[in-house]
Amino acid sequence: MTDPRKIIIDTDPGQDDAAALMLAFASPDELNLLGITTVAGNVPLSYTSRNARIVCELCGQQARAVYEGADRPMVRDLVTAEHVHGKTGLDGAVLPEPTMKVQPQHAVDFIIDTIRREPEGTVTLCTLGPLTNIGLALQKAPDIAPRVRELVMMGGGFFEGGNITPAAEFNIYVDPHAAAAVVGSGIPVTMMPLDVTHQLMTTKARVARIAEIGTKPAATMVEWLQFFERFDEEKYGSDGGPLHDPTVIAYLLKPELFGGRHCNVEIELQSELTVGMTVVDWWRVSGRKPNVQVMRNVDADGFFDLLIERFARL
Amino acid sequence: MTDPRKIIIDTDPGQDDAAALMLAFASPDELNLLGITTVAGNVPLSYTSRNARIVCELCGQQARAVYEGADRPMVRDLVTAEHVHGKTGLDGAVLPEPTMKVQPQHAVDFIIDTIRREPEGTVTLCTLGPLTNIGLALQKAPDIAPRVRELVMMGGGFFEGGNITPAAEFNIYVDPHAAAAVVGSGIPVTMMPLDVTHQLMTTKARVARIAEIGTKPAATMVEWLQFFERFDEEKYGSDGGPLHDPTVIAYLLKPELFGGRHCNVEIELQSELTVGMTVVDWWRVSGRKPNVQVMRNVDADGFFDLLIERFARL
Amino acid sequence: MTDPRKIIIDTDPGQDDAAALMLAFASPDELNLLGITTVAGNVPLSYTSRNARIVCELCGQQARAVYEGADRPMVRDLVTAEHVHGKTGLDGAVLPEPTMKVQPQHAVDFIIDTIRREPEGTVTLCTLGPLTNIGLALQKAPDIAPRVRELVMMGGGFFEGGNITPAAEFNIYVDPHAAAAVVGSGIPVTMMPLDVTHQLMTTKARVARIAEIGTKPAATMVEWLQFFERFDEEKYGSDGGPLHDPTVIAYLLKPELFGGRHCNVEIELQSELTVGMTVVDWWRVSGRKPNVQVMRNVDADGFFDLLIERFARL
Amino acid sequence: MTDPRKIIIDTDPGQDDAAALMLAFASPDELNLLGITTVAGNVPLSYTSRNARIVCELCGQQARAVYEGADRPMVRDLVTAEHVHGKTGLDGAVLPEPTMKVQPQHAVDFIIDTIRREPEGTVTLCTLGPLTNIGLALQKAPDIAPRVRELVMMGGGFFEGGNITPAAEFNIYVDPHAAAAVVGSGIPVTMMPLDVTHQLMTTKARVARIAEIGTKPAATMVEWLQFFERFDEEKYGSDGGPLHDPTVIAYLLKPELFGGRHCNVEIELQSELTVGMTVVDWWRVSGRKPNVQVMRNVDADGFFDLLIERFARL
Repeated sequence: MTDPRKIIIDTDPGQDDAAALMLAFASPDELNLLGITTVAGNVPLSYTSRNARIVCELCGQQARAVYEGADRPMVRDLVTAEHVHGKTGLDGAVLPEPTMKVQPQHAVDFIIDTIRREPEGTVTLCTLGPLTNIGLALQKAPDIAPRVRELVMMGGGFFEGGNITPAAEFNIYVDPHAAAAVVGSGIPVTMMPLDVTHQLMTTKARVARIAEIGTKPAATMVEWLQFFERFDEEKYGSDGGPLHDPTVIAYLLKPELFGGRHCNVEIELQSELTVGMTVVDWWRVSGRKPNVQVMRNVDADGFFDLLIERFARL
Repeated sequence: MTDPRKIIIDTDPGQDDAAALMLAFASPDELNLLGITTVAGNVPLSYTSRNARIVCELCGQQARAVYEGADRPMVRDLVTAEHVHGKTGLDGAVLPEPTMKVQPQHAVDFIIDTIRREPEGTVTLCTLGPLTNIGLALQKAPDIAPRVRELVMMGGGFFEGGNITPAAEFNIYVDPHAAAAVVGSGIPVTMMPLDVTHQLMTTKARVARIAEIGTKPAATMVEWLQFFERFDEEKYGSDGGPLHDPTVIAYLLKPELFGGRHCNVEIELQSELTVGMTVVDWWRVSGRKPNVQVMRNVDADGFFDLLIERFARL
Repeated sequence: MTDPRKIIIDTDPGQDDAAALMLAFASPDELNLLGITTVAGNVPLSYTSRNARIVCELCGQQARAVYEGADRPMVRDLVTAEHVHGKTGLDGAVLPEPTMKVQPQHAVDFIIDTIRREPEGTVTLCTLGPLTNIGLALQKAPDIAPRVRELVMMGGGFFEGGNITPAAEFNIYVDPHAAAAVVGSGIPVTMMPLDVTHQLMTTKARVARIAEIGTKPAATMVEWLQFFERFDEEKYGSDGGPLHDPTVIAYLLKPELFGGRHCNVEIELQSELTVGMTVVDWWRVSGRKPNVQVMRNVDADGFFDLLIERFARL
Repeated sequence: MTDPRKIIIDTDPGQDDAAALMLAFASPDELNLLGITTVAGNVPLSYTSRNARIVCELCGQQARAVYEGADRPMVRDLVTAEHVHGKTGLDGAVLPEPTMKVQPQHAVDFIIDTIRREPEGTVTLCTLGPLTNIGLALQKAPDIAPRVRELVMMGGGFFEGGNITPAAEFNIYVDPHAAAAVVGSGIPVTMMPLDVTHQLMTTKARVARIAEIGTKPAATMVEWLQFFERFDEEKYGSDGGPLHDPTVIAYLLKPELFGGRHCNVEIELQSELTVGMTVVDWWRVSGRKPNVQVMRNVDADGFFDLLIERFARL
């Protein structure tokens, strides 16, 4: 048996970030979570740092280390998504304020120090929000890029278009300069775009299966999902909404659930109309070098089976 | 019975433009073709003007009036697509050089004069190539915009991405400034994007049905399609290639074959990465005003039934 | 003695355009004015076409041919400058409405036909406003470019910055796409930028000399200048304002009044902050090919001596 | 008598950076130099960090603390200027390698900690190179912006145009995103652009006066200036070259030497043609809010008198 894979989760919770964290907490045999870093995104940093700790405490993970990172993107002004996640980012369930403290070290420095300290090629970065912390770490310490094993991100969208604008997905739109730094860094990048996550609908039947687990974390997750999905149900007229961020952790646990293609991805930075778009050269017409493993297919039932089986362990 | 609908076909033939022209020639009960205007696109203007006349003569339509238009886009340098259409634009069949002459009037002036002369709201513009001639006509004579009944274009792509670049479809990419002028003109615009045309594959079975017609135009079309489809067969590994331009004429004959949505479309002009992209706000997240009827669904069998039935009339 | 030089004046009058027209009218030995074409710019086209004819009639030039051109730029929306020129473009003097008619031909077609008809290398284009008509002529008839002797434009600014924005001069800002087509056309271009015209102040002493001429055209010019200069006097705190457009005609009459450098000029098209800027590579740091004779120095007293001497002939 | 003003010098030496450092070293009554931070710019970071220490040791300032900062700009790829400064950045004089060590702390963190620790409104940032370190500090710790007394930068150019491109000055061009962050931060910014520094020529007479000082630092400065000025002498055909960076320190010592205007400055980020341009709204035509004190005039003789008088103290 191999050692569990070392990961850092960079996150802006968000109800679906919470689901990703819970999936990681429930998988200690496979994943060694070295730390959680927070970033402004779905809601401002003060909320995402709070929410990360609320999720830890909900799951009995008070010993986790949470590091606070960037409160704004590298270049652009911060855009948030309260229209999706509610004012706090975790609207839908009432939970106590966290008692855990954030670590004194800045998230960017934690990421740099960890990658420098751990053996080369052993640390995987899991990003669930805007890539600001990673972009800043690469700027301050370019030497870390060749030491990272893989970066798995929820972000982007191509054949589905975007969600925050017609062309751009929220995480990339918020900090496209950081995203451009990441896809241009030489780090092996795996991308979970809307093309995948829009196949993962939190249907009534699936939510009911989570409810059946009967634990406090599962019950809270049901409340969160019911709040979270209302936005996409209204927008798309669907049964449930897409579940984005847990794909990143699910991929580490069961990569065989996903299918994609290694191709070139460039991030649009210039035009206000398309800024933040992940331009995926799926058909290789550009002659540009492949730099990202872009996922497009997913076994949706397999994904929810995994999610529910692991939620039940918490 | 109503009078046939007055149309101008603006075209850069191209094998699939030829199919569109043939569909129009075969439908005089429904369509009154006032003139054919040519533009640089698939191949340079000298070829497209020649090809338009070759197609006329192939179909016994020597009396048609062909007007030569712009030999280059409004702002950008001309890009052509010999890699798809062959050097002449009509590679695949050997046909005599045309004996018809082009009309002395410039295409742009023919378009302006025709729209001004015909009763308001009676002329439909059918565009099969870059929109340069229309863009220039709108620039020179802005008064024509409210007089146009409808503009039906083959162009753009959204959920399928582009074909000339990852983000842009060829016709729009070649002259994005003209496209922007068209979608911003107030003319009712109907768009047939790659999302539709990629559902219309010239499979072996369908080409065989055209071959069975047994006429010279049909036999020539079979040769053209076999040449034309090889590019996309190699790219996509499909049985046959997508048939783009006849969708415009098919829509006028049988609009019920197509389904879409009235939404906002903006043309990307600023960024080299995404220039020529048709940014379709399908989910209405932008707050921008709907300006284009964007087609997304098509009854492929119904489309080919129509095409073959009409080809048999020539 | 040589034949007078054949010129077309493309203009958007404007009080200073009027001064340029008067300078040309007064110089039949040197200049053969083939026609006047109008364009939207300082004020909308309906006013500039009217104003060109008013200036003709004021100077007894009723036989001149005035052709109406573009009422809007090639790509961008029209911007006008009533804050400088007043509502009509010729505010400051009360003159009768013109009785002359505009010619039936479109200005763009007049320019094309004239350049094709006259011997190669004999026609000089004098542009006093946005370059829309020239840009459209080059688009419709690229064959005319190598037939043009020279294009002399008032437009741009570099060491002085801009006037309509910090970076852009008005004529170029209004239609930067047309300007880019012109400087990229291969036509020998001479540019009279703000760097020159801001040295040509209509001081009280100079205006008094015009007043002394005592003719109706001179008296009207005094009224126009007094209206026109008030804007720049307020802005710059100067005695009088800069006189822009007559530099173009003065250069044809006495090129020795001006000094400059043949260097590369590119027109900014992409960025809203700098759009319309004429980026002059005066110090040749870019490696780009020289394409414009950019004037920077002028003998101001010599210029006004010429102007006043010629005004006295009308 | 007041306490000396607390400053941090952020620098990429560079011969003219060396002159600025020497001017600061020689002025302890007026300036309390809290630390020197280095950045990639004129030459790569490994050289600028070395050069800062060489200058310290040349002047007997071994006790100074030098902090190493960013080795690349925030978003764009690094551009350097060996064509001006020579391979090492201090070409022209042969000096021993430094024995001083750089501090273990990152420059960005030193800047943040210092500004947080010192009383609000007491620390002045003096930047002689690209603004990367300051941009990153503002990103990581936005709370420092209102605590900074003033930021005085050498950078930009407007009426003189640029030097690295026709539109852009080198320091801003290298990291325009950092520059944009600085001018948008709310910190009181004073800018010494090329418009000022091109009035400060190191003529033979002025260099001779430095040589007369007779000390090792002065003799070394003479060697550096003679190397450094050769580039601009060739480019501009002038006697000597412009002296850029010491203006920042001279302004702190004798602000009355400089004259300028408080106006809006925006940094061009979008267009490759004009990227890095400092768009100065000197005439206030944009309606944008003044955010920078832009210097345009300088008492050149007074400046060199100050410089030489202080060099003689070392």
